[in-house]
Amino acid sequence: MARLPGLGPRSARRAVLHLVKKRDTQLRPLARLMEEVGRTVRSCLNCGNLSTGDVCAICASAKRQNGQICVVEDVADLWAMERAQVFEGRYHVLGGTLSPLDDIGPEDLHIPKLRDRISAEEVTEVILALNATVDGQTTAHYVARELEGTGVIVSGLAQGVPVGGELDYLDGGTLRAALSSRKAF
Amino acid sequence: MARLPGLGPRSARRAVLHLVKKRDTQLRPLARLMEEVGRTVRSCLNCGNLSTGDVCAICASAKRQNGQICVVEDVADLWAMERAQVFEGRYHVLGGTLSPLDDIGPEDLHIPKLRDRISAEEVTEVILALNATVDGQTTAHYVARELEGTGVIVSGLAQGVPVGGELDYLDGGTLRAALSSRKAF
Repeated sequence: MARLPGLGPRSARRAVLHLVKKRDTQLRPLARLMEEVGRTVRSCLNCGNLSTGDVCAICASAKRQNGQICVVEDVADLWAMERAQVFEGRYHVLGGTLSPLDDIGPEDLHIPKLRDRISAEEVTEVILALNATVDGQTTAHYVARELEGTGVIVSGLAQGVPVGGELDYLDGGTLRAALSSRKAF
Repeated sequence: MARLPGLGPRSARRAVLHLVKKRDTQLRPLARLMEEVGRTVRSCLNCGNLSTGDVCAICASAKRQNGQICVVEDVADLWAMERAQVFEGRYHVLGGTLSPLDDIGPEDLHIPKLRDRISAEEVTEVILALNATVDGQTTAHYVARELEGTGVIVSGLAQGVPVGGELDYLDGGTLRAALSSRKAF
């Protein structure tokens, strides 16, 4: 239990004690659900999202085929986009970012599958929604170069002041990005 | 002392005790400096920045006259831009944002002076660097409308993912802004 992210040894002990005390109402149902999830949930063969079938609900929906594919780093980011209800196309989960230090190279990311999908799903635009971190942006540039010659528009999320952001609390890099990509009113 | 922002009664007591104990090395020099600041520091007659003369160092510097004026809400935001070293033009401090609830109307902001400066300083672009809050953006739209017909380009800071930002931690509004103003790679 202590090996779960966000749980230290102390909170793991508390959680375990809590579960053991509520053996019938919490421990057994949780174990049953975990067993079920372990049996049924796998990766969507198309996009890499979690799914109970071969293909996830988003890839299976004809409504989501609008010619746009949003490339994200992992499933957590896909969920973040879905929570925000801002994107109506399909996703593609890369499965990580390039990171020489962690020995993650291009062959560990699902880039060939992305190239296949571009022709198979009549994609017109690939939106690289990778984190605004060094690894994320390096990966974005790599993917953008890999997609050269496929004829799709490759775009990236805008960088700038987050909604509700106050200048006094922003770092210099964000202010620089916000100023350099300022938009006419 | 407890009326200073960020100091509660408890930390005010601690600060006062500390000062009284270090009467000669801290209390007296601080009192002297405060008296001096109270006597010499005022608002720049041109932009509203703090200054020890009639005109602040930025307005006095010919190097900073590059045809751009960056409109900020208050001096703290001006300092934030200067800390980030991203802007090479001059500033204009509005002195607040429109806020009907707090009874702050257009007449409380330094908009006429901004209009005067546009012709006097051969300004070509006004960059509205107001906070990405509701009040800030309302004010930005008001100022932009007030500047119609002056012939200057009016722009605003880009909204989007802050530098280093991870999708999973961003609010929906920011993701929406970042997606809708996405840029070609």
